[in-house]
Amino acid sequence: MRQSKLFVKSLREDPKNEESLNAKLLMRAGFIHKVMAGVYAFLPLGLRVIKKIENIIREEMVSLGADEILMSSLQTREAWETSGRYADLDVLFKFTSYYSKGDYVLGPTHEEEITPILKQHVFSYRDLPIYVFQIQNKFRDEKRAKSGLLRGREFLMKDLYSFHTDEKDMEDFYELSSATYSRIFERVGIGEKTYKTFASGGTFSKYSHEFQTVTPAGEDTIYICEACKLAINEEVIEDVNHTCPQCGSKELRMEKSIEVGNIFKMKDKYSAPFDLKFKDQSGDEKIVLMGCYGIGLSRLMGAIVESSNDENGIIWPEAVSPFRFHLLETKPGLGQDIYQRMVADGYEVLYDDRDVSFGEKLKDADLFGITWRLVVGEKNKDKIEIKRRNEEQIKLVEYGDIRKAE
Amino acid sequence: MRQSKLFVKSLREDPKNEESLNAKLLMRAGFIHKVMAGVYAFLPLGLRVIKKIENIIREEMVSLGADEILMSSLQTREAWETSGRYADLDVLFKFTSYYSKGDYVLGPTHEEEITPILKQHVFSYRDLPIYVFQIQNKFRDEKRAKSGLLRGREFLMKDLYSFHTDEKDMEDFYELSSATYSRIFERVGIGEKTYKTFASGGTFSKYSHEFQTVTPAGEDTIYICEACKLAINEEVIEDVNHTCPQCGSKELRMEKSIEVGNIFKMKDKYSAPFDLKFKDQSGDEKIVLMGCYGIGLSRLMGAIVESSNDENGIIWPEAVSPFRFHLLETKPGLGQDIYQRMVADGYEVLYDDRDVSFGEKLKDADLFGITWRLVVGEKNKDKIEIKRRNEEQIKLVEYGDIRKAE
Repeated sequence: MRQSKLFVKSLREDPKNEESLNAKLLMRAGFIHKVMAGVYAFLPLGLRVIKKIENIIREEMVSLGADEILMSSLQTREAWETSGRYADLDVLFKFTSYYSKGDYVLGPTHEEEITPILKQHVFSYRDLPIYVFQIQNKFRDEKRAKSGLLRGREFLMKDLYSFHTDEKDMEDFYELSSATYSRIFERVGIGEKTYKTFASGGTFSKYSHEFQTVTPAGEDTIYICEACKLAINEEVIEDVNHTCPQCGSKELRMEKSIEVGNIFKMKDKYSAPFDLKFKDQSGDEKIVLMGCYGIGLSRLMGAIVESSNDENGIIWPEAVSPFRFHLLETKPGLGQDIYQRMVADGYEVLYDDRDVSFGEKLKDADLFGITWRLVVGEKNKDKIEIKRRNEEQIKLVEYGDIRKAE
Repeated sequence: MRQSKLFVKSLREDPKNEESLNAKLLMRAGFIHKVMAGVYAFLPLGLRVIKKIENIIREEMVSLGADEILMSSLQTREAWETSGRYADLDVLFKFTSYYSKGDYVLGPTHEEEITPILKQHVFSYRDLPIYVFQIQNKFRDEKRAKSGLLRGREFLMKDLYSFHTDEKDMEDFYELSSATYSRIFERVGIGEKTYKTFASGGTFSKYSHEFQTVTPAGEDTIYICEACKLAINEEVIEDVNHTCPQCGSKELRMEKSIEVGNIFKMKDKYSAPFDLKFKDQSGDEKIVLMGCYGIGLSRLMGAIVESSNDENGIIWPEAVSPFRFHLLETKPGLGQDIYQRMVADGYEVLYDDRDVSFGEKLKDADLFGITWRLVVGEKNKDKIEIKRRNEEQIKLVEYGDIRKAE
């Protein structure tokens, strides 16, 4: 893609009225636009990152055997009263339809919608287990929305729901989805900084699990056992006696972190009030057991930026970099031939063909954070400079060796 | 995909409380789920259709040179007051955030969001033209929502916005986008039934254009000039003296139809109140001119069902069929080998491996409407029956000739 065709311009200064590092960097680079506190639009380069995250998550959901669906944002007051959360959940956006006279809710999550849907399709133990997921925008009337993409009033989310005949089946899938979550965070490039974390369990199990990514901007505090690659959320650290529940070690490192995913065994919390039952092999009616598993895509994007940047800008992990290559030229037109060759050879490349100074291009390249920077210069004849965003070393290679240099 | 793994079941009877044919058929086939009047969830097969429509539209938008972005559903009261539509647009969902104390709007369209975004990136004539699009859910507080996917309170939409220095440039792109729209309706399989239609033009041009698909369930009435492949909306038929504006013919055929797309020259309707300006070549400030171009994806899906069905179910045009092939077997297991071979050969196939009668499978195949039905039977030895959903003729072919039979 030619950068001159992008309608977006990078900003020279930090945007006003924005406190969070992730939003500041993403707005300066023109990846996102702030609509209001906690609400952002994704501009072309930002949407490319979101789609890369989305594709990785979708692949992993499909490999879990989950079916993709797309539920609605508008939900009914009745459904939320059935679950008991209409009164309880303070971040629920509530409003009234003038014409239908109905009371609506904007979905912050979808247990209240998926459970009634399943009721129309689950009758027998033969229909179970079922795994369904969606990738869709969610809404929360957050008290404070000052953390950029980390805590939005509107945000993108992948939610997976699982339905089971018994606890063993639910537990097995829970472990499977936990391993899948670890693989997702590995694949998007924050595996090393992300820990499966013991957290307060709610009603049905002693602990639930979150996935927490270490970053100074995190709102959570976790205690890490590096040996086990596990963490304990501050909220339950007393319950485990300041000890790793797996190896018993007391050598725990405290860090600030951001929750990038969570997995819950809901058991019958939603299936009971919605009366979601099945007939077992003896013909007896039983309540379906549920699990639910969330990852915020936009939050994940924010967490990646918070945990991977330097004073000059963002450093995207290669798997979610909006492009793999950012092609610069010291003089207008110099990169033209290489660009066309790269496009023909199927490289994913952003070509900075703008009529601005080379210094400005270098600054923008660092700000944008695309993994591989290529420079075509006058001095280097047919050779190309290649540099990885997170490394200092610049190599001079032939066109054919671009790939080898990686 | 194995049908036994789909969590969705087809219904034997029409759903209650649903008047529209498109929603009845899609709900019976398990493609969609009704959340409330005018609000539907897309189940796996329905979402596959939506994604096929989406991919066709996206390809055509990209070939127009448009950049994809993703805007928010939450918008501010201020933006809608700036455009003057906060008070005027009766279908606007309005509500208040408890915590932020702000008044919010749920986006029924995005002129009020895209124009302020562009204001941060457009300064000079060199920055124009700009074309941006998104594919995203929209909200309208519809008075009546009894037409299934044709008129939803929540629905999926592609909206494209264009920004120009002058009228000529705006007109040129308008014509280009009109041709692109015709191609989209062609590609999704309703080209023959879809007419570019003169409609009332609003503030700035005598006529705007809609794309109308002929179907008995349509809420609109159009007058078709078959020679010109054009139509005139009833609302302006008096203005054109019951005459085709192109060839002057009075031989116009009246039909019911549904609007599947519209294109507008907005000129400065939004850019003026939002003060979206640019500097021209002489350094003078001028107002940017705008066009906007919409296609409802879910409405298009409903329109396809309304215009392409028979007494047994849906007949999908091949390009948007959830799968290309529906593989049936007269006895459990008979189709197993063929299915595995088809998957290995990269065919897109739904294999009905359920433990139900062959008669039920045939009924569901007609209801689902997948383009090519294959039957593996005991009698036919190694041959496979192939039948197109909209034809009567059944052919008996070798595996290698499946493709040829198309």
